Amino acid sequence: MNGLPDVVALHLPAWVGGVLPKSPCIDDQAKVALAVALSEGNVRHGSGGPFGAAVFGPDHRLVAAGVNVVLPQACSVAHAEMMAFMLAQQAVGRARLNESGSGWTLATSAQPCCQCYGASIWAGIDTLLIGARAEDVMALTEFDEGPLPADWTGELERRGIAVRRDIAREAACAVLADYGRQGGARY
Amino acid sequence: MNGLPDVVALHLPAWVGGVLPKSPCIDDQAKVALAVALSEGNVRHGSGGPFGAAVFGPDHRLVAAGVNVVLPQACSVAHAEMMAFMLAQQAVGRARLNESGSGWTLATSAQPCCQCYGASIWAGIDTLLIGARAEDVMALTEFDEGPLPADWTGELERRGIAVRRDIAREAACAVLADYGRQGGARY
Repeated sequence: MNGLPDVVALHLPAWVGGVLPKSPCIDDQAKVALAVALSEGNVRHGSGGPFGAAVFGPDHRLVAAGVNVVLPQACSVAHAEMMAFMLAQQAVGRARLNESGSGWTLATSAQPCCQCYGASIWAGIDTLLIGARAEDVMALTEFDEGPLPADWTGELERRGIAVRRDIAREAACAVLADYGRQGGARY
Repeated sequence: MNGLPDVVALHLPAWVGGVLPKSPCIDDQAKVALAVALSEGNVRHGSGGPFGAAVFGPDHRLVAAGVNVVLPQACSVAHAEMMAFMLAQQAVGRARLNESGSGWTLATSAQPCCQCYGASIWAGIDTLLIGARAEDVMALTEFDEGPLPADWTGELERRGIAVRRDIAREAACAVLADYGRQGGARY
C-alpha cells in the first residue's frame, strides 16, 4: 500500500500444540496451570518472554492459547494475553467473547501489564485468573508492568469481570525465576 | 494446531492507500490531521469505528497508518493505535520503535483508551499527539475509554513520552459527531 505495510500476522510457536489439554480444565487451578505450562514452554524453547495465557469458554474448554512473542515477531503488542484474546475472538468470530453468553475466562501466568489490563476490559471475559503477582514479575525478571489505575481490581469488578489471584503462584514464580537466572531479555 | 487457531492476521482497508501523504508531515498539526483523515475515511467507508492513528519516524515521514477494524475483523485489540504500532514495528523489524534512536511519534485522532494507553508505553514512541479528548469521545459517540491511572499524562512523561493534546480537536470532534449522528455501533 504505497510502500507501507497493510497486513500484520502473528503466530504461536509450533511447540504450543504439544502442551494443549485434550479435555476441559474445570477448576481455576487447572486453567492457570495451563497458562504456566505455556510460560514454561516459551522459556524452554526460547520463543519469547516468560509469559503464557489461555482463554476458556463457558464449557471450560480451551478456546485459544497465547504466549509472549514480542521479540521474535517484532511486535510490542504480542503479549501472551493479547495473543490469546485475538486468537479466541478469531475462533468464535466476534470481537467480544461473551456477547452471546457469559462464562468466558482468561487465565494468565502473571498479572497483566498496563496494556493487557486495558485489553481485558474490551475482550469480553467474565473472569480473570492470575498466577504470579506484579511484584513477583518485577522481583524475579525486572520486567516492568507499567502504570495501572489505583484500584485496578475494583475497576474490573465494576465492569463485571471477577478477579482471582495467587492461583498456582509458586509454579508461575518458578518459571519467572528460571528466566531471570538465565538472564533472559527484559523489555 | 489441535483444531485451535495459531495465526491471527489483521489488515487495513484498501481505501487507506488513497489518503496517505506523499511527503513528510513536519508539524504536529499535519500529523494529527492525517489521523483525523483516517478516522473520517473509516466512518465514510463503514470499515470500522471512528478512529485513526499514524506513526511517524524521526524524519517526519509516515511509517504506518491505522484505523479501527474491531467489528469487521472480530478483534477487540484492533484499535487504530494498535494497528499503527503493529504495522510500524513490522515495517522497521523491531518491537521497540525508538530502540536505535529517538524521534518517533504516534498521532491519534482521539485520546487513547485504557488498552492503547498501555500499549503506547511499550511501543517505543517519544511523542504522543492527540486530537479529541476522552470526554469528546464519550459525549459524541458514547464509546467508553476505560479506566486510566489518575495522572495518565504524568506517567507517560515520566517514561520519556511527551504528550500534546487538543491538536486539530475540532476536526476530530466533527468526525465523532458524524458517527454519533449516524448511530454507528458503540463497543
